[in-house]
Amino acid sequence: MSLLVIGTVAFDAIETPFGKTDKIVGGSATFASLGASYFFDDIKIVAVVGDDFPQSEIDDLNKHNINTDGLQVKKGEKSFFWSGRYHDDMNSRDTLVTELNVLADFDPIVPETYQDCEYLMLGNLSPQVQQTVIQRLHKRPKLIVMDTMNFWMDIALDELHKTLQMVDVLTINDAEARQLSGEFSLVKAARKILTMGPKYLIIKKGEHGALLFHENKIFSAPALPLEEVFDPTGAGDTFAGGFIGYMAKAGTVSFDNMKNAIIYGSALASFCVERFGSERLRNLSQDEISARISEFVGLAKFEI
Amino acid sequence: MSLLVIGTVAFDAIETPFGKTDKIVGGSATFASLGASYFFDDIKIVAVVGDDFPQSEIDDLNKHNINTDGLQVKKGEKSFFWSGRYHDDMNSRDTLVTELNVLADFDPIVPETYQDCEYLMLGNLSPQVQQTVIQRLHKRPKLIVMDTMNFWMDIALDELHKTLQMVDVLTINDAEARQLSGEFSLVKAARKILTMGPKYLIIKKGEHGALLFHENKIFSAPALPLEEVFDPTGAGDTFAGGFIGYMAKAGTVSFDNMKNAIIYGSALASFCVERFGSERLRNLSQDEISARISEFVGLAKFEI
Repeated sequence: MSLLVIGTVAFDAIETPFGKTDKIVGGSATFASLGASYFFDDIKIVAVVGDDFPQSEIDDLNKHNINTDGLQVKKGEKSFFWSGRYHDDMNSRDTLVTELNVLADFDPIVPETYQDCEYLMLGNLSPQVQQTVIQRLHKRPKLIVMDTMNFWMDIALDELHKTLQMVDVLTINDAEARQLSGEFSLVKAARKILTMGPKYLIIKKGEHGALLFHENKIFSAPALPLEEVFDPTGAGDTFAGGFIGYMAKAGTVSFDNMKNAIIYGSALASFCVERFGSERLRNLSQDEISARISEFVGLAKFEI
Repeated sequence: MSLLVIGTVAFDAIETPFGKTDKIVGGSATFASLGASYFFDDIKIVAVVGDDFPQSEIDDLNKHNINTDGLQVKKGEKSFFWSGRYHDDMNSRDTLVTELNVLADFDPIVPETYQDCEYLMLGNLSPQVQQTVIQRLHKRPKLIVMDTMNFWMDIALDELHKTLQMVDVLTINDAEARQLSGEFSLVKAARKILTMGPKYLIIKKGEHGALLFHENKIFSAPALPLEEVFDPTGAGDTFAGGFIGYMAKAGTVSFDNMKNAIIYGSALASFCVERFGSERLRNLSQDEISARISEFVGLAKFEI
C-alpha cells in the first residue's frame, strides 16, 4: 500500500523582502512528497525533470523514503523553472519567469510497481495530466486529493471540471474557491464546489488557517501566528503532502481523521515558510513536529 | 457590582448590497450593552443623545436590564448620526455622512449610583472621553476593556496612548493593530501593543475569527462561516459587549475565561450581522445563543 504523489519537480528562483535565491529545487511534488514523508514511508512520485537536475537532489528524496522510479529524466532537456518576487505583505507575488521546458509535453508514465497505490496526491499541475494519472491506475485509489490553482481555472477550466469529478478532496485557497464557484461567501462557494465532484473541500486561508467542508459539516483549523514568513513558496504543497501523508498513516477516510490531517499539514507548512524553498523540510525531527502540533492544540483549545 | 458601558447611542443609515435603511438606532454603547445584556443583568450606560431620540428606544434598552440614568438627553440638540455604504465584499465601506451633533462636546457624567462598577467597557469613542470616565470612577474597576478604531489613531494618537496605559484589554481589528504598531506581522504587532498598557490584546479578524494575546500565550478563535453577512454594522461593538458581559458573569479575570468570552462575543456578533443594525440583538433567546455556541464548539474541535 503506497502513497503516490504527482506534480512538478523543478527549479525556483525566489525573491522575498528577506533576500533572494539562485535556482533552488522546488516544485509541487517535491514539497508534497517531503511533507508526506514525515508521516508515511512508502511514497512514490511521478514527475519529470531535465538532465540539468542534480542526482544529489534525487538521492536526497530517496533518503526520505521517496521512490523516484517514476521520475523521468529527459536527456538534453531542461527542468521546469519558475521565478517570482514576493511583495512586502508576503501574500501576493509577481511571476518573473516561467519556463515550462520538460513540462511542455509531460506524459506521466506510471511504473507497474506503482500500481499498489491506495492514496493519490495530485499536486498542482495541468488538470489533463492529473486526469491521465488517475486513468492509468488499474484500481481506483482509496483517497484522491487534488491540489490546483487559479492559473488552471483561467486556461483549462473544462479539463479542471473533468478532473474534479474524479477526486475525493480538493484543496484550494479562498480566492480560488471564489473564482471556481463565482460566490463570494465561502459557505456558498463550498456548497457549489461540493456538487462538482469532490466530497471534501479544503479552503486554505494562509495566515488565517483552513476550512474543511464535507456534507453539512465544517471544521475551522487555526494557523499558527508566525512572527515572520520568510518564504511562502511551497507552503500549500507541503500542507497537501502532510495532509495526505497523515491520512495514509491513519488508514481510514473519515472527517475526524481529516481534521487531524489538516492540523498536521498546517504544522508542516508552518515549518516550510521559515526558510527558502524546501530547506526546512529536509531535516525536521519528529520532536520538532510534535512540539509544533502541541502549539496548535494549545492555540485552538477552549473548554465550554 | 455592575458593568458600565460607555460609547455612542446614535442614529445610523446604512446601505448594503441587500438594501438600505432610514435612520435606525445604532452606536457603540447600544450594540455593546445589548450584547452584554444576554449574559449579565446589571448594566449601566453613559452616553449622550439629542431630544430627537425616541423614548421607546430608551425603554427598550431598559427592558434589557440596561440602566440609562447616565444617558444624557440634550434638549434642542440632535443625536450623533452616521451614514455609510458597504461594498460588495462587506469588508470595506464608505462613510457618506458623519454629524457629530451632541457628541461634539460630550462630557461623560458618571452618576453616583454607577460608582459600584467593577467591569468597564469603553466602547468606541474619543480616547479623551474614555479617559475621563476612568478618572471619574472613585475605584478602579476590576476589568477595563477598551475598543477603538483607526479614526482615533489618525487624529488623536497621543490621547489614545494615554488611555491605553489605563486599560486591561484592547480590542482592535488586524489593520488597526498593524497601524498602531507599525508592524505587519500580527505576532510582532501584538508584542509591541502589549508594551503600551493593555495586558490583553484581542485582534478581530472578521470572517477569520479573532486572536487573543497575553504574555507569551495566544488563543485563536474561529469565526462561524456565514452564508451571508447582511449588515456588519455594530458587529465589533456587539463582540466587545458579549465579551465583557461574559467576563462579568464569570467573575474572575483569567486567560481561560477570556477564551470563552471571545467565543460568546463572537456568537453574539454572528447574530448581529444577520439583520440591519441592532434588530437581531433585540429578541434573542438563550436557546438560540446556546445552539450557536454549540456550533462554535463543533467547528473548532479536534482530538489530537
